[in-house]
Amino acid sequence: MSGYLDARPRVGYFYTGKSGNHMLAEKIKHITVNEYQSRPVVVQESESVYDAICTMFLEDVGTLFVVDKQKTLVGVLSRKDLLRASLGKQALESIPVSIIMTRMPNITVCKQDDLIIEVANKLIEKQIDGLPIVVEVEYGSRFEVVGRITKSNITALLVDLANDDVI
Amino acid sequence: MSGYLDARPRVGYFYTGKSGNHMLAEKIKHITVNEYQSRPVVVQESESVYDAICTMFLEDVGTLFVVDKQKTLVGVLSRKDLLRASLGKQALESIPVSIIMTRMPNITVCKQDDLIIEVANKLIEKQIDGLPIVVEVEYGSRFEVVGRITKSNITALLVDLANDDVI
Repeated sequence: MSGYLDARPRVGYFYTGKSGNHMLAEKIKHITVNEYQSRPVVVQESESVYDAICTMFLEDVGTLFVVDKQKTLVGVLSRKDLLRASLGKQALESIPVSIIMTRMPNITVCKQDDLIIEVANKLIEKQIDGLPIVVEVEYGSRFEVVGRITKSNITALLVDLANDDVI
Repeated sequence: MSGYLDARPRVGYFYTGKSGNHMLAEKIKHITVNEYQSRPVVVQESESVYDAICTMFLEDVGTLFVVDKQKTLVGVLSRKDLLRASLGKQALESIPVSIIMTRMPNITVCKQDDLIIEVANKLIEKQIDGLPIVVEVEYGSRFEVVGRITKSNITALLVDLANDDVI
């Protein structure tokens, strides 16, 4: 019954006052990022826009993360970043992704134990498709990417909730 | 208490056997598309890929619907359809969207009174971002687009469920 009823000696069961909606809200508010994350796909900052678009198709993702040689997260590439570049006159093979990416510190990140509902709020507020899941290394001076969480993962969560598959 | 408890004369309240998860699942399974839809953005089939990309930025959407002169839905353009076109050598101004779009009858559509959970399942299964919401005209021989439902709408629904905002 998980919260709907409480019991006391000589009283028996009584209704705690929590509604079904309230219980549902409480349930969703406890699901963390690591329960629904996907693997990240990264490209090097020196790669061309052309190669990044190819990687996006080959890996079947909608967002790429850009890293430097130390594997530090330096940027994010959305499909729209790549489309914007394709409107220009310059050959896509000659533009490095570092020129068109959204770069740190303007990137919204999250961590594996963050709540998925916080991520959902950020995705809506900032109108983006996904966030990199990061770990801090060297006392927080840089981030390494360990995962990715997107509106697809959120959609999968809703389907699981409807199928009663969330523990 | 909406289903958790039932009552009978001389018996009093008793637990119906439905779990919190079950109730949540039931709740989600009753939400329809028209409660969370967005407005559709359409382009004509004769427009160029270049203009379609511009429309996508101007209208701030991720999916465009392609219509003919009778306003009949004839195709869908995803960001990836447009990116694929940009990998080619041809000038984007010279390619009509009708060449690169996904065309009827290969388009998944939904209606305003469909269940949102069915849409969520289709979005995951077909790995797409959104569906056109259509009405049948002329006895079902053609579809007109009246809305759009995407993973962003599904994400907004999850946030509402967590905030206890869904009636």
